[in-house]
Amino acid sequence: MSEQKVFDVAVIGAGPGGYIAAIKCAQLGLKVCCIDEWKTDDKAAPGGTCTNVGCIPSKALLVSSGLYEQITTSASKHGISVGEVRLDVPVMMARKNKVVRQTNDGILYLFKKNKVEFFNARGSFVMTTDNGYVLNIGEPVNEKIVARNVIIATGSVPRALPGVPFDEKFILSNTGALSLSEIPKNLGIIGAGVIGLEMGSVWSRLGSKVRILEVAPSLLGMADTAVSKEALKIFTKQGLAMKFGVKVENIEVSDGRVSVTYKDSDGSNQEMWVEKLIVSIGRVPNSATLDAANVGLKLDDRGFVEVDDECRTNLPGVWAIGDVVRGPMLAHKAEEEGVAVAERIIGRKVPVDLNLIPSVIYTEPEIAWIGKNEQQLKAEGIAYKCGQVPFAANGRARAADETEGFVKILADAATDELLGVHIVGACAGELIAQACQALAFRATAEDLALICQAHPSFSEAVKEAALAVNKEALNI
Amino acid sequence: MSEQKVFDVAVIGAGPGGYIAAIKCAQLGLKVCCIDEWKTDDKAAPGGTCTNVGCIPSKALLVSSGLYEQITTSASKHGISVGEVRLDVPVMMARKNKVVRQTNDGILYLFKKNKVEFFNARGSFVMTTDNGYVLNIGEPVNEKIVARNVIIATGSVPRALPGVPFDEKFILSNTGALSLSEIPKNLGIIGAGVIGLEMGSVWSRLGSKVRILEVAPSLLGMADTAVSKEALKIFTKQGLAMKFGVKVENIEVSDGRVSVTYKDSDGSNQEMWVEKLIVSIGRVPNSATLDAANVGLKLDDRGFVEVDDECRTNLPGVWAIGDVVRGPMLAHKAEEEGVAVAERIIGRKVPVDLNLIPSVIYTEPEIAWIGKNEQQLKAEGIAYKCGQVPFAANGRARAADETEGFVKILADAATDELLGVHIVGACAGELIAQACQALAFRATAEDLALICQAHPSFSEAVKEAALAVNKEALNI
Repeated sequence: MSEQKVFDVAVIGAGPGGYIAAIKCAQLGLKVCCIDEWKTDDKAAPGGTCTNVGCIPSKALLVSSGLYEQITTSASKHGISVGEVRLDVPVMMARKNKVVRQTNDGILYLFKKNKVEFFNARGSFVMTTDNGYVLNIGEPVNEKIVARNVIIATGSVPRALPGVPFDEKFILSNTGALSLSEIPKNLGIIGAGVIGLEMGSVWSRLGSKVRILEVAPSLLGMADTAVSKEALKIFTKQGLAMKFGVKVENIEVSDGRVSVTYKDSDGSNQEMWVEKLIVSIGRVPNSATLDAANVGLKLDDRGFVEVDDECRTNLPGVWAIGDVVRGPMLAHKAEEEGVAVAERIIGRKVPVDLNLIPSVIYTEPEIAWIGKNEQQLKAEGIAYKCGQVPFAANGRARAADETEGFVKILADAATDELLGVHIVGACAGELIAQACQALAFRATAEDLALICQAHPSFSEAVKEAALAVNKEALNI
Repeated sequence: MSEQKVFDVAVIGAGPGGYIAAIKCAQLGLKVCCIDEWKTDDKAAPGGTCTNVGCIPSKALLVSSGLYEQITTSASKHGISVGEVRLDVPVMMARKNKVVRQTNDGILYLFKKNKVEFFNARGSFVMTTDNGYVLNIGEPVNEKIVARNVIIATGSVPRALPGVPFDEKFILSNTGALSLSEIPKNLGIIGAGVIGLEMGSVWSRLGSKVRILEVAPSLLGMADTAVSKEALKIFTKQGLAMKFGVKVENIEVSDGRVSVTYKDSDGSNQEMWVEKLIVSIGRVPNSATLDAANVGLKLDDRGFVEVDDECRTNLPGVWAIGDVVRGPMLAHKAEEEGVAVAERIIGRKVPVDLNLIPSVIYTEPEIAWIGKNEQQLKAEGIAYKCGQVPFAANGRARAADETEGFVKILADAATDELLGVHIVGACAGELIAQACQALAFRATAEDLALICQAHPSFSEAVKEAALAVNKEALNI
C-alpha cells in the first residue's frame, strides 16, 4: 500500500459551498483537496445541484422561455409582428447544457489555478487517525487520504413523496423537469415552492397547461403576505392554475400518463391526469453516503449534520456547510459559510448572519426579499413602519411595460432601522442587492431615501418605498 | 385688474427637478404653483425633456428595439424560430407616446393630490415687489402672480451646430430622433455622447446603417478608460460605425438627403450622405425666456443661472436647479436639488453631493458609473487599488447569454474606501444603485465584499470585483 496523501483540508462536495470553501482554503495557504462524484456525459461536473440541476440551468431555461413568451405575447404591443413561432426543445436544452458545462469547466479551471486537488469520486469517512481523518475516495479513484480538517458540503437531494420514487420520466424532480425533450401538454406540479414556480413558469410559457397542487393553505408562506398575494394574482393571470390546502392521496403511472388523486381543501375527492408530474416538495440533506458512523459524526433525526453557529460539527476539525446543515438551502448561504469556515480554520473570526441571506424566486416578475416580513414582526410584537410603492409609479417600469408588483420596506417604528425589504416585480433579484447592503450596514429608511438613484431606473422604486416609510413619497 | 395671487413658492418648469420641487414644497406646507408651457396634442405635458423627449421615450424605444433585436439575432440560439419579422414603426411610436402620456398624466395627478397649482404656460420674471417677485404667466393663461420664493427649473435645450438649425425632418435633435415615422436606411449622428449612442442603438437595431462622427479623440471621455474601450469594442461589433477626432465642415440638405462634409482625424476630406442626421453635441441651458434682466438675475456667459453650492442665485428667495445650473445635466441630479431647495426654503440644511450622482447610458449592454475613474485618480495623484471582474465569470450572465463587459471598482490604497465603481454590462443601470449607496455611506471595498448577494445574480459581480480589489476574488 502506497503512502496516503495528507491534506490540511479535504472538502467533500463541490457545490457552491464546497468549491468556494476549497478555493478559499487554498488562497489562505492550506493544502486542499475537493472530492465530488458528479459526472455529466462521463466528464467531471463540479458545481453540485446549483450548477448541474438547479440555479444555473433553471435560469437558462427561464431566459429562453421568457424570450419565447415575449415573442408570442408581447411583441405585437411594440409593433413587432412575427410569422409562425416554433420552439426546438433540444436546441433550447443544448444551450442550457452548454451554460452548465461552461460553469463546470470554470470550476475545474479555478481548482487548477488555485492548486486545489480535485477527485471526481465519492468521498466518505473511514476512521479517525492521529493527525485527522482517513477518507475514502470511491470508484474510479479508489484511494485513501488523510485530512487534518474536513469540510462537509454534500448538499441536499429532492424529497420524494412516500412510495412515489422519481423515475425522471413521468415523476420528475428538478433534474427531470430541467431536461424534458418535448413540451408536455399537461404538466402537474406538487409543491408551489421556488422550484415548482420556476419550473411551472418555464413550461407554462412554452405552452403546457400547468396545474400546481400545494398542501399549504396559501402561496409562499415564507414570503411577506402582501408579496405572496400579489404573486398569486400575477401567476394566476399568467395561466398557472394553483390549488392550496390539497391532500395528495395517490399517484399512479399508467398508459404513459400520471394520475393524481387528491382531496381538495373542502375535502372533496379529485383526480388529475397529466403527462408529467413534477414533485417539488422540498429537499433533504445528502448525508447518507458520508459513512458518518465510522467516525461518530453526529446527524440529527432528519439527516442534517449537526453544527453550531460557526459550522463546527461534534468532531474536532470537522465542519459542515450549506444544505446539509440548518438554515436556508440556498447557494449563497453555502458560499458564505464556505468562506467563513476556511477563515476559521486558520484562526480568524468571521460571522455569518443567517438573517442577512436574501431569497430570490426567478419567476416573471421576480420575487426577492431579505429580513423580516410583516407577519413576523406582528408575531414578535415589534412596532414597525411600512412603505409600499407600486412599480406602476416607476418610469423605467412603465417604459419597459413591466409595471406589476411593488417594493415594500419595513422599518423599526422608533429607530427607523430597516427590518425587511420585500419586492415582487421586474429586476427584484438585483434590486435586493442594495437592500442586503443596507440591512448589513444597519441603515435606516431615511438613509436609503437619501441615496441619489439614477433616473430612470427600477432602483428608484426602492428609494421611493424608503421615502414612503416616513410618509415622504414624492411619486405616489 | 383683479388681485394677483400670492404664492410662497413658484416653480418655473415642470421637468423632474421642477415637479419634484413643487410637490416637496407642498408637502412641507407651502403654497405652491408650478408653471410649465409644454403641450402635446394641445394637452398639458408636464415632465420636461426627461418625460417628453428624453429619458422616458428613449427607454421605451430602447425596450422595443431591444426586443426586435433579440428576435432577429438571438432567438435562434434559444431554439426559437420565427417566420418573417416585421416592424410597424407607428405602433412602436404609439406605445412610446402612451408611456409618455401616462407619465404626463401621473404628474398632473400628483399636482392635484398635493395641491400644487399648475399653470400650463410660459413663466417669466416681470419685476421685484415688496413681498417677492411678480411673474408673468403667458399665453393662454395671461395672468400675473406674486411669489415670495421662485425656483427656476427651466432645464436645457439641444445645442445646434452653428448655421444648422434643427428642422426635425432631416436635421434632428433628440425630439426628432424619437419620432421618426419610418426606419432610415442611412442615419448619421454627430456626437457620440449618451443621446447619440442611445439613438444610434435604437435605429441600428431596427436596421439603419448608423455612422457616428465625434469631434473628441475617443469615445466617452467622461467614463473610465477601460469602460469606454470595452464599450467601443462592443458597439463596433454591434454595427455602429464610429469615427473620432472628426471636424465637421459643412452640412447641407438637398434632394431629401443630408450631406455632411468633414475632415477625418488624419486631415483627409470626407463626405457622408445620409437620409437623416441626428445632431447630439450637447445641451445648453434654457434661460433665455426667463426675462432675467427684469429682476437682475445673474446668468453666466453660457446662459447658466449662477448659483452657489446650495442652488441660491444672486437674488434673495430665487433658486435654480437642474440643467439650467452647473453640474451634470441629469434628471436625478435635478430631483435631488429640487428636494433640497424645498427643504432649504423652510430653513432645513440638506446637502447635495455632486460626486454622488450616478451616470447611466442605456445601451445594450448598459454603462453606469459613480465616483472617480482611474484617469482622474492618476491625475489627482491619489493612490488606489483596482478590482475588475468580467461578467463572463458570472453565472447569471452566462445563463442569460449576457457575458459582455465587467465591473471595475477603485478604492483608496491606504484606507480601502471606495472611490469609484464603473460598470459596462447587463443590468449596469440597476447594479450601480448598490454602489451609490456604498459611496454615500463611505464604505470600503471590504465592506462591499462582505455583503451576501443572491445567487445567481448580476449583483454577485459587484461583490466579486470588491473582493478583487484586495486580491481575494474567488471566481476569476
